[in-house]
Amino acid sequence: MSAGKVQWILLFVHLFVIPASAQQNPRPVSMNKVELGFKLDERGVARYAVSFDGRQVVSASRLGFKVKEGFVLDSNFKILKTELSSADETWKPVLGEVSSIRNNYKQLKVFLQQKEAPFLLMNIVFRVFAEGVGFRYEFPIQPSLRFFVVENELTEFNLTGDHKTFWIPGDYDSNEYLYTTSKLSEINAWKFPMLSFGRKEENMPDQHAVQTPLMMKTAEGLYLNIHEAALVNYSSMQLHVDKANYSLTASLVPDAAGNKGYLRTPANTPWRTIIVSDKAPDILNSKMILNLNEPSRIGDVSWIRPMKFMGVWWEMQIGKTSWNYTDNIDSLSANGTLVGNGRHAANTANVKRYIDFASKNGIEGLLVEGWNTGWEEWTGVYKEENFDYVTPYPDFDLEEINRYAKQKNVKMIMHNETGASAANYDRRLDTAFRLMNRYGYPAVKTGYVGKITPVGEHHDGQWMINQYIRSAEVAAKHKVMIDMHEPVRPTGLHRTWPNFVASEAGRGNEWNAFSEGSPPEHETILPFTRLMGGPMDYTPGIFKLRGYAAADPKRQMHTTLAKQLALYVTMYSPLQMAADLPENYERYPDAFQFIRDVALDWDDTKVIEAEPGDYLTIARKEKAKPNWFIGAITDENSRESTVKLDFLDRDTKYDAMIYADADKADWQTNPEAYQIRKMTVDRNTVLKLKLAKGGGAAVSIVPVK
Amino acid sequence: MSAGKVQWILLFVHLFVIPASAQQNPRPVSMNKVELGFKLDERGVARYAVSFDGRQVVSASRLGFKVKEGFVLDSNFKILKTELSSADETWKPVLGEVSSIRNNYKQLKVFLQQKEAPFLLMNIVFRVFAEGVGFRYEFPIQPSLRFFVVENELTEFNLTGDHKTFWIPGDYDSNEYLYTTSKLSEINAWKFPMLSFGRKEENMPDQHAVQTPLMMKTAEGLYLNIHEAALVNYSSMQLHVDKANYSLTASLVPDAAGNKGYLRTPANTPWRTIIVSDKAPDILNSKMILNLNEPSRIGDVSWIRPMKFMGVWWEMQIGKTSWNYTDNIDSLSANGTLVGNGRHAANTANVKRYIDFASKNGIEGLLVEGWNTGWEEWTGVYKEENFDYVTPYPDFDLEEINRYAKQKNVKMIMHNETGASAANYDRRLDTAFRLMNRYGYPAVKTGYVGKITPVGEHHDGQWMINQYIRSAEVAAKHKVMIDMHEPVRPTGLHRTWPNFVASEAGRGNEWNAFSEGSPPEHETILPFTRLMGGPMDYTPGIFKLRGYAAADPKRQMHTTLAKQLALYVTMYSPLQMAADLPENYERYPDAFQFIRDVALDWDDTKVIEAEPGDYLTIARKEKAKPNWFIGAITDENSRESTVKLDFLDRDTKYDAMIYADADKADWQTNPEAYQIRKMTVDRNTVLKLKLAKGGGAAVSIVPVK
Repeated sequence: MSAGKVQWILLFVHLFVIPASAQQNPRPVSMNKVELGFKLDERGVARYAVSFDGRQVVSASRLGFKVKEGFVLDSNFKILKTELSSADETWKPVLGEVSSIRNNYKQLKVFLQQKEAPFLLMNIVFRVFAEGVGFRYEFPIQPSLRFFVVENELTEFNLTGDHKTFWIPGDYDSNEYLYTTSKLSEINAWKFPMLSFGRKEENMPDQHAVQTPLMMKTAEGLYLNIHEAALVNYSSMQLHVDKANYSLTASLVPDAAGNKGYLRTPANTPWRTIIVSDKAPDILNSKMILNLNEPSRIGDVSWIRPMKFMGVWWEMQIGKTSWNYTDNIDSLSANGTLVGNGRHAANTANVKRYIDFASKNGIEGLLVEGWNTGWEEWTGVYKEENFDYVTPYPDFDLEEINRYAKQKNVKMIMHNETGASAANYDRRLDTAFRLMNRYGYPAVKTGYVGKITPVGEHHDGQWMINQYIRSAEVAAKHKVMIDMHEPVRPTGLHRTWPNFVASEAGRGNEWNAFSEGSPPEHETILPFTRLMGGPMDYTPGIFKLRGYAAADPKRQMHTTLAKQLALYVTMYSPLQMAADLPENYERYPDAFQFIRDVALDWDDTKVIEAEPGDYLTIARKEKAKPNWFIGAITDENSRESTVKLDFLDRDTKYDAMIYADADKADWQTNPEAYQIRKMTVDRNTVLKLKLAKGGGAAVSIVPVK
Repeated sequence: MSAGKVQWILLFVHLFVIPASAQQNPRPVSMNKVELGFKLDERGVARYAVSFDGRQVVSASRLGFKVKEGFVLDSNFKILKTELSSADETWKPVLGEVSSIRNNYKQLKVFLQQKEAPFLLMNIVFRVFAEGVGFRYEFPIQPSLRFFVVENELTEFNLTGDHKTFWIPGDYDSNEYLYTTSKLSEINAWKFPMLSFGRKEENMPDQHAVQTPLMMKTAEGLYLNIHEAALVNYSSMQLHVDKANYSLTASLVPDAAGNKGYLRTPANTPWRTIIVSDKAPDILNSKMILNLNEPSRIGDVSWIRPMKFMGVWWEMQIGKTSWNYTDNIDSLSANGTLVGNGRHAANTANVKRYIDFASKNGIEGLLVEGWNTGWEEWTGVYKEENFDYVTPYPDFDLEEINRYAKQKNVKMIMHNETGASAANYDRRLDTAFRLMNRYGYPAVKTGYVGKITPVGEHHDGQWMINQYIRSAEVAAKHKVMIDMHEPVRPTGLHRTWPNFVASEAGRGNEWNAFSEGSPPEHETILPFTRLMGGPMDYTPGIFKLRGYAAADPKRQMHTTLAKQLALYVTMYSPLQMAADLPENYERYPDAFQFIRDVALDWDDTKVIEAEPGDYLTIARKEKAKPNWFIGAITDENSRESTVKLDFLDRDTKYDAMIYADADKADWQTNPEAYQIRKMTVDRNTVLKLKLAKGGGAAVSIVPVK
């Protein structure tokens, strides 16, 4: 559907303006069980608080700002006026977990002014939803505040207890950490070795800083998620944890000069989001972060489509082949050409093998990494001119491969690894996308592995935040979908730039290829953390679960094969990879059938059950089709998942194909054992899905023909 | 002439290779009076020395390198072999002070290897010319040194006394300082307030660092100049002065991470140059720096031409009008447009006034600054998206102005001020130059005022060095000549990129508009310092010498009008401005005739007499014409300059027009008083030119028709 068809049902129901003369604190604003309070104390310090169902979730917490030009916007405020309004609209995402999203909130806007010269103005806008609160700062145009440098944002989130927390450390350059489940008071970011290419002092200077989305659970059983929405032209927010007082403080990622951001009035921060519920599934159901993003800026969106793809990729990840064409770029042949290492994956014959498999199995797209020159020395060094994005290696016949793919009805997906040399990519963006257009590439996967150039910038700093958006905008101009690896974690920008379909920005399946891997609980945590901001290109679908890694024959995935299938439902992404090798899929064609069948874009989503760190079961209805797909996963414990199919249509019989762990399946001892059974179901059916340790189940439900 | 026509007469006369087994120190290499010695001591430390006419100029001075990967290349070397060769070639610059340049040197190449693992290789190449020595480091391809980070270059220049020195402080971001004449031991860079937009700790951390070209004079009357040639992909070299030992040490400009450079083997440093003579004119006559640069990389150079131009410029410099269109960009009119301040210079009517004057007076080009949006907030802040390079202000009719200029046979010169937001300019380079091509702009003046973005980079660091060259290369691709303001000081790159015609990179005439100005000696020092590396866009030709500055009615130029004319000859630049306002030229049409007549590109140049800080007289012959032009200038003292015209053709009579200070002229009391006399001259004539205090004389000599 096109953005032009989005239905706007925007109702501004109330609008109270409390006049300046009153200067009184506004009354609390509530929506269902969520209540937001705002108060200015006698010193003119602004604070807010959030409660859920009468229970305080965020106690009175300070708001404020430090500006490098010498202004401290943290006290001495008066309220000029307050505005209360509300909205109730419904909009349709281009791609989504549901076809239609309701945006229903009450807004409180507090106009503040400092009481002494230069009488600075700052507004704080709160939006109260049924599932939480978003707020942001706004800086109006004013004579004494035009262009300014952010020294610090002083936002606090004062929590009410030593909550159970799912966290990763506050690395300025990487999100690819394992989640630790601990009490707030036990957080220690430095227990991890650095994953980013930098020194701890530069990239993770605060031992008690964590990334968002930060997922928590209170002793009373409340689920609490803190993140941000619409991160544009601003640095990413990390949270500094005061372990004694359970207080979190915004901590913005700095640049080479230690500055946290450069703003020009009128300006605003991203929305700070607090999602809260007594039910874990409500956290996953929340569309608050999307609702706090701006509507699509792209007019014609007809070219933005969900897409399954394979990749000449996993074979490099597991060390079977290489991205680089040569092992010694300094040693040329007698006639001055590179000498191939015989292990280069992106060669024409091998690529054609993948094209053949994808074509035969209805997988629409094919990604090829390592096709272009530069991989011999691409990361870990500040080599600015590492890639040119247009020159193929000598054994990759760009012309022929594209001809062959077209003939076989397979769409090639471009790969632009930048090695984090982002200024170089900026300079070559147009050239890179012109190449994609010439051959009709519908999508590009970009990558930002390594230390950022410009030197001193960070993946999560304002400069790079703008770079990601710039790349997405150039991609949109060229009608190319973009899937970013190693960018900042998402904040719902795929609403505004619907071609910014997915990103990695977290610890993906690939870590099982080249490291000790991720434990079985990992995929039950990710939806509550990394995926709160948007789709993740997690690259599921590994079928060969042991003995795949060239470096370590004992390495294995911490998952069963059935769980790999379930991830296609639980890990939302409209660009979704079938990540394993053709030969591994050929071993289990019946299981592969689920990957062929599963949808990527949805009319509806039902989170059946969820507990971060433990389990997750989701059912989704295919966009514009009557088909449903279910994914159920568990952690290291086996369990039985009960799914009432009461969401199915009345008076309709369905064929259900159940891809389940075999009776003796176990991620450790017997991971590839699965069983497939077919049964007829209707809305009265209750499915009992048995999940092995580290296991899962996938179900397709299609009306009987 | 085209680069294709360059005549190569390259003779490798000798080639001695001393075999590895010998491992002995090479014998000194000499050329005329200059001798170069190289020695490895028993600790394997490499040192060189330079003498002139038997007198030591640089005593044994250490050579070496520190590499951030942990290698120290400063000792423990052995000599693998040495190679001696020589060259004698003649080449023709596209534009130049002479039409043909002889490149005659002896080369000593010393192949060094460290005696312990990882047995690193480093070569040092010396070229010995009649007027000095150039040397550079080369790092061959080797297994243990591929991509590497420069921690420090350890090059020393040990001088033999407390020389008289003409220096400016080692600011990483500006060359626009007054020169101080002092002994080496008296150097104190911090006596100056910072000119660049940054803190002293960041931009001028070393109190005893100075910029090059560093001009010195020994007590024995030797003239000594230290600089570098072919600064490409490397940081600019400053010199740290050890005031007790008269030793200079290379000090490279760092980036945000404190790194001095990123290199990939095979790599080389720029050439370090030592020019020496017992005659000051020989320093100016030297083409050593050009000879150490690579030949032109541009094939068709037919579009590279000398050009005189006026500018809608000085009127902003003196505060009469403004670059910015509005005084308050935040205050829009009722219909949402900018509100003009009524002082915007680059308006269509005013530009046409300049076009009319230029057209009538045979001035080929017209620069217009402030034509494009963004000038309200363009510098002094890290505002990355400050300019877009294509959007004119509402009162600048781009289409009409270009139409009118073409009709009047005037060529518009583009202005691209970047406000030092260089990554932004990089991203918009193609767009900017496409606009120039659309309207046929033959040249662009770029500017880099302010703090560099990417944040933490410096004007003189490797990243920006590469950016300037990138800009010149994009300009060449679009067949546009480039004139850079506020880049690093030049190092002869106009040989390699002949369209990189000129730059400012020093304290230009503009400082007399908006500051206390520059003393009369300033222009006698610049040719020995700033101009050693290449042409300077000094913007001479100011006729209204008092009462021009809006901010200070008492401000005046430290020069007479005749001296302003003389600068067209003494300050070499093939792009040369007639900087004053049309109405000021209209007051003195007879004097303006010299600006109309003077050539910009030369067959020959004779430095008649020169003493840095005191005086300079130069005669030049117009390219492919029989005409000669003479410029003579003095400092605050009046003097008589004697010029024997023995360089004129035999048997030819010439009309000489002499533009001289009037008898009572004085830069302070009577600056605009001049006298013009015409006389017939031949090669036996001896001109006596009387120069007032702060005065000068200009002479045109044209064969009698």
